[in-house]
Amino acid sequence: MKLTTYLRDAAPRLALVDGTDLIDLNDAQPQVPSDLRLALKAGVDLAAAARAALSGKRVALASVKLAPLVPEPGKIVCLGLNYFDHAKEGGREKPDYPWFFFRAASSQVAHGEAAWLPQVSTKFDYEAELAVVIGKKVPRHTREADTLQYVFGYSCYNDMSVRDYQKRTPQWTIGKNFDRTGGFGPVLVTADELPAGAVGLKIQSRLNGRVMQDANTSDMIFSVAETIALLADVLTLEPGDVLVMGTPAGVGQARTPPVWMQAGDTIEIDIERVGLLSNPIVNEAQ
Amino acid sequence: MKLTTYLRDAAPRLALVDGTDLIDLNDAQPQVPSDLRLALKAGVDLAAAARAALSGKRVALASVKLAPLVPEPGKIVCLGLNYFDHAKEGGREKPDYPWFFFRAASSQVAHGEAAWLPQVSTKFDYEAELAVVIGKKVPRHTREADTLQYVFGYSCYNDMSVRDYQKRTPQWTIGKNFDRTGGFGPVLVTADELPAGAVGLKIQSRLNGRVMQDANTSDMIFSVAETIALLADVLTLEPGDVLVMGTPAGVGQARTPPVWMQAGDTIEIDIERVGLLSNPIVNEAQ
Repeated sequence: MKLTTYLRDAAPRLALVDGTDLIDLNDAQPQVPSDLRLALKAGVDLAAAARAALSGKRVALASVKLAPLVPEPGKIVCLGLNYFDHAKEGGREKPDYPWFFFRAASSQVAHGEAAWLPQVSTKFDYEAELAVVIGKKVPRHTREADTLQYVFGYSCYNDMSVRDYQKRTPQWTIGKNFDRTGGFGPVLVTADELPAGAVGLKIQSRLNGRVMQDANTSDMIFSVAETIALLADVLTLEPGDVLVMGTPAGVGQARTPPVWMQAGDTIEIDIERVGLLSNPIVNEAQ
Repeated sequence: MKLTTYLRDAAPRLALVDGTDLIDLNDAQPQVPSDLRLALKAGVDLAAAARAALSGKRVALASVKLAPLVPEPGKIVCLGLNYFDHAKEGGREKPDYPWFFFRAASSQVAHGEAAWLPQVSTKFDYEAELAVVIGKKVPRHTREADTLQYVFGYSCYNDMSVRDYQKRTPQWTIGKNFDRTGGFGPVLVTADELPAGAVGLKIQSRLNGRVMQDANTSDMIFSVAETIALLADVLTLEPGDVLVMGTPAGVGQARTPPVWMQAGDTIEIDIERVGLLSNPIVNEAQ
Protein backbone atom coordinates (compact mmCIF):
# COMPACT_ATOMS: atom_id res chain seq x y z
CA MET A 1 0.00 0.00 0.00
CA LYS A 2 1.14 3.49 -0.88
CA LEU A 3 -0.14 6.63 0.82
CA THR A 4 0.48 10.29 0.22
CA THR A 5 -0.50 13.66 1.65
CA TYR A 6 -1.85 16.18 -0.82
CA LEU A 7 -3.28 19.68 -0.60
CA ARG A 8 -6.95 20.48 -1.06
CA ASP A 9 -8.04 24.06 -0.37
CA ALA A 10 -4.51 24.55 1.05
CA ALA A 11 -5.10 21.90 3.74
CA PRO A 12 -3.12 18.63 3.83
CA ARG A 13 -5.18 15.48 3.31
CA LEU A 14 -4.30 11.81 3.46
CA ALA A 15 -4.82 9.71 0.35
CA LEU A 16 -4.30 6.23 -0.98
CA VAL A 17 -2.13 6.03 -4.09
CA ASP A 18 -3.33 3.45 -6.62
CA GLY A 19 -1.26 3.44 -9.78
CA THR A 20 -1.31 7.00 -11.13
CA ASP A 21 -4.43 7.94 -9.13
CA LEU A 22 -5.07 9.04 -5.59
CA ILE A 23 -8.21 8.44 -3.55
CA ASP A 24 -8.90 10.67 -0.56
CA LEU A 25 -9.27 8.40 2.49
CA ASN A 26 -11.36 10.83 4.51
CA ASP A 27 -13.83 11.40 1.66
CA ALA A 28 -14.27 7.67 1.30
CA GLN A 29 -14.54 7.11 5.08
CA PRO A 30 -15.23 10.17 7.21
CA GLN A 31 -14.01 8.42 10.38
CA VAL A 32 -10.43 8.33 9.00
CA PRO A 33 -8.54 11.49 10.08
CA SER A 34 -7.15 13.37 7.08
CA ASP A 35 -3.70 13.61 8.72
CA LEU A 36 -1.38 10.58 8.71
CA ARG A 37 -0.06 11.26 12.20
CA LEU A 38 -3.56 11.59 13.66
CA ALA A 39 -4.77 8.49 11.79
CA LEU A 40 -1.88 6.44 13.19
CA LYS A 41 -2.37 7.92 16.67
CA ALA A 42 -6.06 6.97 16.55
CA GLY A 43 -5.07 3.40 15.68
CA VAL A 44 -7.06 3.43 12.42
CA ASP A 45 -6.56 0.25 10.37
CA LEU A 46 -5.26 2.04 7.29
CA ALA A 47 -4.95 -1.15 5.26
CA ALA A 48 -8.67 -1.81 5.72
CA ALA A 49 -9.45 1.84 5.06
CA ALA A 50 -7.43 1.67 1.85
CA ARG A 51 -9.25 -1.46 0.65
CA ALA A 52 -12.60 0.18 1.34
CA ALA A 53 -11.49 3.35 -0.47
CA LEU A 54 -10.63 1.60 -3.75
CA SER A 55 -14.12 2.25 -5.12
CA GLY A 56 -13.92 5.96 -4.15
CA LYS A 57 -13.43 9.00 -6.34
CA ARG A 58 -10.10 9.04 -8.20
CA VAL A 59 -7.96 12.05 -8.98
CA ALA A 60 -4.82 11.95 -11.10
CA LEU A 61 -1.79 12.13 -8.78
CA ALA A 62 -0.10 14.33 -11.38
CA SER A 63 -2.87 16.93 -11.05
CA VAL A 64 -2.50 17.70 -7.33
CA LYS A 65 0.03 19.49 -5.16
CA LEU A 66 1.52 17.43 -2.37
CA ALA A 67 2.30 18.35 1.24
CA PRO A 68 5.20 16.92 3.28
CA LEU A 69 4.22 13.28 3.86
CA VAL A 70 3.74 13.80 7.61
CA PRO A 71 3.11 17.55 7.79
CA GLU A 72 3.57 17.90 11.56
CA PRO A 73 5.46 14.97 13.09
CA GLY A 74 5.82 14.98 16.87
CA LYS A 75 9.54 14.70 16.20
CA ILE A 76 11.89 14.25 13.28
CA VAL A 77 14.99 12.41 14.49
CA CYS A 78 17.91 12.59 12.06
CA LEU A 79 21.14 10.60 12.03
CA GLY A 80 24.44 12.10 10.93
CA LEU A 81 27.31 10.06 9.49
CA ASN A 82 25.32 6.85 9.11
CA TYR A 83 27.12 5.61 5.98
CA PHE A 84 30.80 4.80 6.47
CA ASP A 85 31.85 6.25 3.09
CA HIS A 86 30.16 9.58 3.98
CA ALA A 87 31.76 9.71 7.43
CA LYS A 88 35.10 9.06 5.72
CA GLU A 89 34.63 11.77 3.07
CA GLY A 90 34.08 14.23 5.94
CA GLY A 91 37.36 13.10 7.53
CA ARG A 92 35.61 11.26 10.37
CA GLU A 93 35.83 7.79 11.84
CA LYS A 94 32.96 5.33 11.88
CA PRO A 95 30.87 6.49 14.85
CA ASP A 96 30.06 4.09 17.71
CA TYR A 97 26.79 5.88 18.45
CA PRO A 98 24.56 7.79 16.03
CA TRP A 99 25.01 11.55 15.76
CA PHE A 100 21.36 12.39 16.45
CA PHE A 101 19.88 15.81 15.80
CA PHE A 102 16.31 16.99 15.24
CA ARG A 103 14.51 18.79 12.47
CA ALA A 104 11.35 20.80 13.13
CA ALA A 105 8.21 20.47 11.02
CA SER A 106 8.70 24.09 9.93
CA SER A 107 11.76 23.02 7.91
CA GLN A 108 9.86 20.59 5.67
CA VAL A 109 9.00 20.91 2.01
CA ALA A 110 6.77 18.71 -0.16
CA HIS A 111 7.69 16.74 -3.26
CA GLY A 112 7.48 19.11 -6.22
CA GLU A 113 7.48 22.19 -4.04
CA ALA A 114 10.30 24.72 -4.31
CA ALA A 115 13.12 24.26 -1.79
CA TRP A 116 14.60 27.56 -0.66
CA LEU A 117 18.16 28.66 -1.30
CA PRO A 118 18.68 30.81 1.81
CA GLN A 119 19.24 34.53 1.56
CA VAL A 120 22.09 34.31 4.11
CA SER A 121 24.14 31.49 2.58
CA THR A 122 25.32 30.03 -0.70
CA LYS A 123 26.48 26.71 0.80
CA PHE A 124 23.31 24.75 0.15
CA ASP A 125 23.76 20.98 -0.09
CA TYR A 126 21.62 17.88 -0.69
CA GLU A 127 21.51 14.63 1.30
CA ALA A 128 19.63 11.55 0.06
CA GLU A 129 18.09 9.69 2.99
CA LEU A 130 15.65 6.93 3.82
CA ALA A 131 12.74 8.14 5.99
CA VAL A 132 11.01 5.85 8.46
CA VAL A 133 7.49 6.60 9.72
CA ILE A 134 6.64 5.15 13.12
CA GLY A 135 3.19 3.53 13.23
CA LYS A 136 2.71 2.62 16.86
CA LYS A 137 4.14 3.88 20.14
CA VAL A 138 7.43 2.09 20.82
CA PRO A 139 7.64 0.84 24.42
CA ARG A 140 10.73 2.12 26.21
CA HIS A 141 13.70 -0.29 26.17
CA THR A 142 12.30 -2.39 23.33
CA ARG A 143 15.01 -4.79 22.15
CA GLU A 144 16.37 -4.49 18.63
CA ALA A 145 14.78 -7.77 17.49
CA ASP A 146 11.34 -6.47 18.46
CA THR A 147 11.46 -2.99 16.93
CA LEU A 148 10.36 -3.38 13.32
CA GLN A 149 6.73 -4.13 14.21
CA TYR A 150 6.44 -0.42 15.14
CA VAL A 151 7.44 0.83 11.70
CA PHE A 152 4.49 1.80 9.51
CA GLY A 153 6.40 2.52 6.35
CA TYR A 154 9.18 4.21 4.43
CA SER A 155 9.64 7.23 2.22
CA CYS A 156 12.36 9.48 0.78
CA TYR A 157 13.89 12.44 2.60
CA ASN A 158 16.23 15.12 1.32
CA ASP A 159 18.02 16.48 4.40
CA MET A 160 19.11 19.68 2.65
CA SER A 161 21.80 21.37 4.69
CA VAL A 162 23.17 24.89 4.92
CA ARG A 163 26.78 23.95 5.54
CA ASP A 164 28.21 27.20 6.90
CA TYR A 165 25.40 27.45 9.45
CA GLN A 166 25.74 23.74 10.23
CA LYS A 167 29.36 24.38 11.18
CA ARG A 168 29.06 27.73 12.96
CA THR A 169 29.11 25.79 16.22
CA PRO A 170 29.51 22.07 16.94
CA GLN A 171 25.69 21.75 17.04
CA TRP A 172 24.48 21.01 13.51
CA THR A 173 20.80 21.70 14.26
CA ILE A 174 20.56 25.25 12.94
CA GLY A 175 22.06 24.36 9.55
CA LYS A 176 19.46 21.59 9.23
CA ASN A 177 16.42 23.70 10.00
CA PHE A 178 16.17 26.43 7.41
CA ASP A 179 12.61 26.85 6.11
CA ARG A 180 11.76 24.60 3.15
CA THR A 181 14.86 22.43 3.24
CA GLY A 182 13.55 19.06 4.43
CA GLY A 183 12.10 17.34 1.37
CA PHE A 184 9.73 14.53 2.38
CA GLY A 185 7.76 12.27 0.05
CA PRO A 186 6.25 11.79 -2.41
CA VAL A 187 4.67 8.61 -1.06
CA LEU A 188 4.88 6.26 1.88
CA VAL A 189 5.33 2.58 1.08
CA THR A 190 4.11 0.37 3.91
CA ALA A 191 6.68 -1.84 5.56
CA ASP A 192 5.02 -5.09 4.37
CA GLU A 193 5.93 -4.25 0.76
CA LEU A 194 9.67 -3.87 1.41
CA PRO A 195 12.49 -5.99 2.84
CA ALA A 196 12.61 -5.93 6.65
CA GLY A 197 14.22 -2.65 7.73
CA ALA A 198 14.22 -1.49 4.08
CA VAL A 199 17.67 -2.98 3.55
CA GLY A 200 19.15 -3.72 0.14
CA LEU A 201 17.60 -0.76 -1.69
CA LYS A 202 19.53 1.45 -4.09
CA ILE A 203 19.58 5.09 -2.99
CA GLN A 204 20.65 7.95 -5.26
CA SER A 205 20.62 11.71 -5.48
CA ARG A 206 20.73 13.44 -8.84
CA LEU A 207 21.38 17.13 -9.37
CA ASN A 208 20.00 18.29 -12.71
CA GLY A 209 20.05 14.65 -13.76
CA ARG A 210 23.69 14.00 -12.78
CA VAL A 211 24.16 11.21 -10.25
CA MET A 212 25.76 12.70 -7.12
CA GLN A 213 25.18 9.96 -4.53
CA ASP A 214 24.81 6.29 -5.43
CA ALA A 215 24.67 3.76 -2.62
CA ASN A 216 22.57 1.07 -1.00
CA THR A 217 20.59 1.19 2.24
CA SER A 218 22.49 -1.93 3.31
CA ASP A 219 25.52 0.31 3.78
CA MET A 220 23.94 2.09 6.75
CA ILE A 221 26.07 1.75 9.89
CA PHE A 222 23.07 1.79 12.25
CA SER A 223 20.11 -0.14 10.84
CA VAL A 224 16.52 0.98 11.31
CA ALA A 225 16.04 -1.68 13.98
CA GLU A 226 19.17 -0.77 15.94
CA THR A 227 18.36 2.94 15.71
CA ILE A 228 14.88 2.40 17.14
CA ALA A 229 16.31 0.28 19.97
CA LEU A 230 18.92 2.96 20.82
CA LEU A 231 16.24 5.64 20.82
CA ALA A 232 13.94 3.52 22.99
CA ASP A 233 16.52 3.71 25.77
CA VAL A 234 16.06 7.48 25.75
CA LEU A 235 12.64 8.57 24.61
CA THR A 236 9.21 7.48 23.48
CA LEU A 237 8.77 7.15 19.74
CA GLU A 238 5.15 7.91 18.93
CA PRO A 239 2.87 7.34 15.91
CA GLY A 240 3.84 9.72 13.10
CA ASP A 241 7.35 10.34 14.40
CA VAL A 242 9.91 10.26 11.61
CA LEU A 243 13.46 8.90 11.52
CA VAL A 244 15.78 10.24 8.83
CA MET A 245 18.48 7.65 8.42
CA GLY A 246 21.58 9.53 7.26
CA THR A 247 23.22 9.99 3.89
CA PRO A 248 25.89 8.20 1.81
CA ALA A 249 29.02 9.71 0.24
CA GLY A 250 28.85 12.20 -2.59
CA VAL A 251 27.47 15.33 -0.94
CA GLY A 252 28.36 18.66 -2.52
CA GLN A 253 30.61 19.94 0.26
CA ALA A 254 32.96 16.95 0.02
CA ARG A 255 33.62 17.41 -3.73
CA THR A 256 36.60 19.16 -5.27
CA PRO A 257 35.61 21.84 -6.02
CA PRO A 258 32.51 21.84 -3.80
CA VAL A 259 29.14 21.70 -5.56
CA TRP A 260 26.45 23.97 -4.12
CA MET A 261 22.84 23.98 -5.23
CA GLN A 262 21.78 27.10 -7.17
CA ALA A 263 18.46 28.67 -8.00
CA GLY A 264 17.15 26.92 -11.09
CA ASP A 265 18.58 23.52 -10.15
CA THR A 266 16.47 20.41 -9.64
CA ILE A 267 17.46 17.90 -6.98
CA GLU A 268 16.08 14.36 -6.95
CA ILE A 269 16.25 11.61 -4.35
CA ASP A 270 15.51 8.16 -5.73
CA ILE A 271 15.15 5.12 -3.51
CA GLU A 272 14.45 1.78 -5.16
CA ARG A 273 10.83 0.62 -4.59
CA VAL A 274 10.22 3.62 -2.31
CA GLY A 275 9.92 6.62 -4.58
CA LEU A 276 11.39 9.58 -6.38
CA LEU A 277 11.44 12.89 -4.51
CA SER A 278 12.09 15.96 -6.64
CA ASN A 279 12.46 19.62 -5.68
CA PRO A 280 13.31 22.67 -7.76
CA ILE A 281 15.64 25.12 -6.00
CA VAL A 282 14.54 28.74 -5.90
CA ASN A 283 15.73 31.81 -4.05
CA GLU A 284 14.08 32.16 -0.65
CA ALA A 285 10.81 34.11 -0.92
CA GLN A 286 10.92 37.63 0.48
CA MET B 1 -1.65 38.36 33.24
CA LYS B 2 -0.62 34.85 34.25
CA LEU B 3 -1.72 31.72 32.42
CA THR B 4 -1.19 28.06 33.09
CA THR B 5 -2.03 24.70 31.54
CA TYR B 6 -3.64 22.17 33.86
CA LEU B 7 -5.06 18.68 33.49
CA ARG B 8 -8.78 17.89 33.57
CA ASP B 9 -9.79 14.32 32.78
CA ALA B 10 -6.14 13.81 31.73
CA ALA B 11 -6.43 16.47 28.99
CA PRO B 12 -4.44 19.74 29.10
CA ARG B 13 -6.55 22.89 29.41
CA LEU B 14 -5.61 26.56 29.36
CA ALA B 15 -6.44 28.66 32.40
CA LEU B 16 -6.05 32.14 33.78
CA VAL B 17 -4.21 32.32 37.09
CA ASP B 18 -5.66 34.91 39.48
CA GLY B 19 -3.91 34.90 42.83
CA THR B 20 -4.14 31.37 44.19
CA ASP B 21 -7.02 30.42 41.86
CA LEU B 22 -7.31 29.32 38.30
CA ILE B 23 -10.21 29.94 35.93
CA ASP B 24 -10.61 27.71 32.86
CA LEU B 25 -10.65 29.97 29.80
CA ASN B 26 -12.53 27.57 27.57
CA ASP B 27 -15.27 27.01 30.18
CA ALA B 28 -15.74 30.75 30.46
CA GLN B 29 -15.62 31.32 26.69
CA PRO B 30 -16.10 28.26 24.48
CA GLN B 31 -14.55 30.01 21.48
CA VAL B 32 -11.12 30.07 23.21
CA PRO B 33 -9.14 26.91 22.33
CA SER B 34 -8.07 25.01 25.43
CA ASP B 35 -4.48 24.76 24.18
CA LEU B 36 -2.16 27.77 24.44
CA ARG B 37 -0.48 27.09 21.09
CA LEU B 38 -3.80 26.80 19.28
CA ALA B 39 -5.19 29.89 21.03
CA LEU B 40 -2.16 31.92 19.93
CA LYS B 41 -2.31 30.46 16.43
CA ALA B 42 -5.98 31.43 16.16
CA GLY B 43 -5.06 34.99 17.15
CA VAL B 44 -7.38 34.96 20.18
CA ASP B 45 -7.10 38.14 22.28
CA LEU B 46 -6.13 36.33 25.46
CA ALA B 47 -6.02 39.54 27.52
CA ALA B 48 -9.67 40.21 26.67
CA ALA B 49 -10.53 36.56 27.24
CA ALA B 50 -8.85 36.73 30.64
CA ARG B 51 -10.77 39.85 31.66
CA ALA B 52 -14.02 38.24 30.61
CA ALA B 53 -13.12 35.07 32.52
CA LEU B 54 -12.62 36.79 35.88
CA SER B 55 -16.21 36.16 36.87
CA GLY B 56 -15.93 32.46 35.94
CA LYS B 57 -15.70 29.42 38.17
CA ARG B 58 -12.58 29.35 40.35
CA VAL B 59 -10.53 26.33 41.34
CA ALA B 60 -7.63 26.42 43.78
CA LEU B 61 -4.39 26.23 41.80
CA ALA B 62 -2.98 24.01 44.56
CA SER B 63 -5.72 21.43 43.94
CA VAL B 64 -4.97 20.65 40.28
CA LYS B 65 -2.24 18.85 38.37
CA LEU B 66 -0.46 20.90 35.75
CA ALA B 67 0.71 19.98 32.24
CA PRO B 68 3.79 21.39 30.52
CA LEU B 69 2.91 25.05 29.86
CA VAL B 70 2.81 24.53 26.07
CA PRO B 71 2.18 20.78 25.81
CA GLU B 72 3.02 20.45 22.11
CA PRO B 73 5.08 23.36 20.79
CA GLY B 74 5.84 23.36 17.07
CA LYS B 75 9.46 23.61 18.11
CA ILE B 76 11.50 24.06 21.27
CA VAL B 77 14.72 25.87 20.39
CA CYS B 78 17.37 25.69 23.12
CA LEU B 79 20.60 27.66 23.48
CA GLY B 80 23.75 26.14 24.94
CA LEU B 81 26.48 28.16 26.64
CA ASN B 82 24.47 31.38 26.82
CA TYR B 83 25.94 32.61 30.11
CA PHE B 84 29.64 33.40 30.00
CA ASP B 85 30.34 31.94 33.46
CA HIS B 86 28.74 28.63 32.40
CA ALA B 87 30.69 28.49 29.14
CA LYS B 88 33.83 29.12 31.19
CA GLU B 89 33.07 26.41 33.79
CA GLY B 90 32.83 23.96 30.88
CA GLY B 91 36.26 25.07 29.64
CA ARG B 92 34.82 26.93 26.64
CA GLU B 93 35.19 30.41 25.19
CA LYS B 94 32.35 32.87 24.87
CA PRO B 95 30.57 31.74 21.68
CA ASP B 96 30.08 34.13 18.77
CA TYR B 97 26.91 32.35 17.68
CA PRO B 98 24.42 30.45 19.85
CA TRP B 99 24.83 26.70 20.17
CA PHE B 100 21.26 25.87 19.10
CA PHE B 101 19.70 22.46 19.60
CA PHE B 102 16.08 21.28 19.78
CA ARG B 103 14.00 19.50 22.33
CA ALA B 104 10.92 17.49 21.35
CA ALA B 105 7.58 17.84 23.14
CA SER B 106 7.93 14.22 24.27
CA SER B 107 10.77 15.28 26.60
CA GLN B 108 8.66 17.71 28.61
CA VAL B 109 7.43 17.40 32.18
CA ALA B 110 4.99 19.59 34.10
CA HIS B 111 5.60 21.56 37.27
CA GLY B 112 5.07 19.22 40.21
CA GLU B 113 5.28 16.11 38.03
CA ALA B 114 8.05 13.57 38.59
CA ALA B 115 11.12 14.03 36.40
CA TRP B 116 12.69 10.73 35.40
CA LEU B 117 16.16 9.60 36.41
CA PRO B 118 17.00 7.45 33.37
CA GLN B 119 17.51 3.73 33.68
CA VAL B 120 20.61 3.94 31.44
CA SER B 121 22.50 6.76 33.18
CA THR B 122 23.33 8.22 36.57
CA LYS B 123 24.67 11.52 35.21
CA PHE B 124 21.45 13.50 35.52
CA ASP B 125 21.90 17.26 35.79
CA TYR B 126 19.72 20.37 36.16
CA GLU B 127 19.82 23.63 34.18
CA ALA B 128 17.84 26.71 35.23
CA GLU B 129 16.63 28.58 32.14
CA LEU B 130 14.30 31.35 31.07
CA ALA B 131 11.62 30.15 28.63
CA VAL B 132 10.16 32.46 25.97
CA VAL B 133 6.79 31.72 24.36
CA ILE B 134 6.32 33.19 20.88
CA GLY B 135 2.90 34.80 20.45
CA LYS B 136 2.80 35.72 16.77
CA LYS B 137 4.55 34.45 13.65
CA VAL B 138 7.90 36.23 13.33
CA PRO B 139 8.50 37.47 9.76
CA ARG B 140 11.76 36.18 8.29
CA HIS B 141 14.71 38.58 8.65
CA THR B 142 13.04 40.70 11.34
CA ARG B 143 15.61 43.09 12.78
CA GLU B 144 16.60 42.77 16.43
CA ALA B 145 14.90 46.06 17.40
CA ASP B 146 11.58 44.78 16.09
CA THR B 147 11.53 41.30 17.61
CA LEU B 148 10.07 41.68 21.10
CA GLN B 149 6.55 42.45 19.83
CA TYR B 150 6.33 38.75 18.86
CA VAL B 151 6.97 37.49 22.40
CA PHE B 152 3.82 36.51 24.25
CA GLY B 153 5.38 35.80 27.62
CA TYR B 154 7.94 34.09 29.81
CA SER B 155 8.15 31.07 32.06
CA CYS B 156 10.70 28.81 33.75
CA TYR B 157 12.41 25.85 32.10
CA ASN B 158 14.58 23.15 33.61
CA ASP B 159 16.68 21.80 30.73
CA MET B 160 17.56 18.60 32.59
CA SER B 161 20.44 16.88 30.84
CA VAL B 162 21.81 13.36 30.75
CA ARG B 163 25.46 14.28 30.52
CA ASP B 164 27.03 11.03 29.31
CA TYR B 165 24.48 10.79 26.47
CA GLN B 166 24.92 14.51 25.73
CA LYS B 167 28.62 13.83 25.17
CA ARG B 168 28.48 10.50 23.36
CA THR B 169 28.87 12.43 20.12
CA PRO B 170 29.37 16.15 19.44
CA GLN B 171 25.58 16.49 18.95
CA TRP B 172 24.02 17.23 22.33
CA THR B 173 20.42 16.55 21.20
CA ILE B 174 20.04 13.01 22.49
CA GLY B 175 21.18 13.91 26.03
CA LYS B 176 18.59 16.68 26.09
CA ASN B 177 15.62 14.58 25.00
CA PHE B 178 15.09 11.86 27.55
CA ASP B 179 11.42 11.45 28.47
CA ARG B 180 10.28 13.69 31.32
CA THR B 181 13.38 15.85 31.56
CA GLY B 182 12.21 19.23 30.25
CA GLY B 183 10.48 20.96 33.16
CA PHE B 184 8.22 23.78 31.89
CA GLY B 185 6.04 26.06 33.99
CA PRO B 186 4.27 26.52 36.30
CA VAL B 187 2.85 29.71 34.79
CA LEU B 188 3.39 32.06 31.89
CA VAL B 189 3.76 35.73 32.74
CA THR B 190 2.86 37.95 29.80
CA ALA B 191 5.60 40.16 28.42
CA ASP B 192 3.83 43.40 29.44
CA GLU B 193 4.36 42.56 33.12
CA LEU B 194 8.15 42.17 32.86
CA PRO B 195 11.10 44.27 31.74
CA ALA B 196 11.61 44.21 27.94
CA GLY B 197 13.32 40.93 27.04
CA ALA B 198 12.94 39.77 30.68
CA VAL B 199 16.33 41.25 31.55
CA GLY B 200 17.44 41.96 35.10
CA LEU B 201 15.70 39.01 36.74
CA LYS B 202 17.36 36.80 39.35
CA ILE B 203 17.51 33.16 38.25
CA GLN B 204 18.32 30.30 40.60
CA SER B 205 18.27 26.55 40.83
CA ARG B 206 18.02 24.82 44.17
CA LEU B 207 18.60 21.13 44.77
CA ASN B 208 16.88 19.96 47.94
CA GLY B 209 16.82 23.61 49.02
CA ARG B 210 20.53 24.24 48.41
CA VAL B 211 21.29 27.04 45.95
CA MET B 212 23.20 25.53 42.99
CA GLN B 213 22.90 28.27 40.36
CA ASP B 214 22.46 31.94 41.22
CA ALA B 215 22.63 34.48 38.42
CA ASN B 216 20.71 37.17 36.58
CA THR B 217 19.06 37.06 33.16
CA SER B 218 21.08 40.18 32.29
CA ASP B 219 24.13 37.91 32.15
CA MET B 220 22.86 36.16 29.01
CA ILE B 221 25.31 36.49 26.11
CA PHE B 222 22.56 36.46 23.46
CA SER B 223 19.50 38.41 24.57
CA VAL B 224 15.97 37.29 23.73
CA ALA B 225 15.77 39.97 21.01
CA GLU B 226 19.09 39.04 19.39
CA THR B 227 18.25 35.34 19.54
CA ILE B 228 14.94 35.88 17.76
CA ALA B 229 16.65 38.00 15.09
CA LEU B 230 19.33 35.32 14.51
CA LEU B 231 16.65 32.63 14.23
CA ALA B 232 14.59 34.77 11.84
CA ASP B 233 17.46 34.57 9.34
CA VAL B 234 16.99 30.80 9.30
CA LEU B 235 13.45 29.73 10.08
CA THR B 236 9.93 30.83 10.84
CA LEU B 237 9.11 31.17 14.53
CA GLU B 238 5.43 30.41 14.96
CA PRO B 239 2.84 30.99 17.71
CA GLY B 240 3.49 28.63 20.61
CA ASP B 241 7.12 27.99 19.69
CA VAL B 242 9.38 28.04 22.73
CA LEU B 243 12.91 29.39 23.20
CA VAL B 244 14.94 28.04 26.11
CA MET B 245 17.58 30.62 26.80
CA GLY B 246 20.54 28.74 28.28
CA THR B 247 21.81 28.25 31.79
CA PRO B 248 24.27 30.02 34.12
CA ALA B 249 27.20 28.50 36.01
CA GLY B 250 26.74 26.02 38.82
CA VAL B 251 25.53 22.90 37.04
CA GLY B 252 26.23 19.57 38.69
CA GLN B 253 28.74 18.26 36.15
CA ALA B 254 31.08 21.25 36.65
CA ARG B 255 31.33 20.79 40.43
CA THR B 256 34.12 19.04 42.30
CA PRO B 257 33.06 16.37 42.95
CA PRO B 258 30.21 16.37 40.40
CA VAL B 259 26.68 16.51 41.80
CA TRP B 260 24.14 14.26 40.08
CA MET B 261 20.44 14.27 40.82
CA GLN B 262 19.17 11.18 42.62
CA ALA B 263 15.76 9.59 43.11
CA GLY B 264 14.14 11.35 46.05
CA ASP B 265 15.68 14.75 45.26
CA THR B 266 13.67 17.88 44.53
CA ILE B 267 14.94 20.37 41.99
CA GLU B 268 13.58 23.91 41.84
CA ILE B 269 14.04 26.67 39.25
CA ASP B 270 13.17 30.11 40.56
CA ILE B 271 13.05 33.17 38.31
CA GLU B 272 12.19 36.50 39.88
CA ARG B 273 8.67 37.67 38.96
CA VAL B 274 8.28 34.68 36.61
CA GLY B 275 7.73 31.68 38.84
CA LEU B 276 8.99 28.71 40.78
CA LEU B 277 9.22 25.41 38.91
CA SER B 278 9.63 22.34 41.11
CA ASN B 279 10.10 18.69 40.19
CA PRO B 280 10.70 15.62 42.33
CA ILE B 281 13.20 13.17 40.83
CA VAL B 282 12.10 9.54 40.60
CA ASN B 283 13.45 6.48 38.89
CA GLU B 284 12.14 6.11 35.34
CA ALA B 285 8.87 4.18 35.28
CA GLN B 286 9.08 0.66 33.92
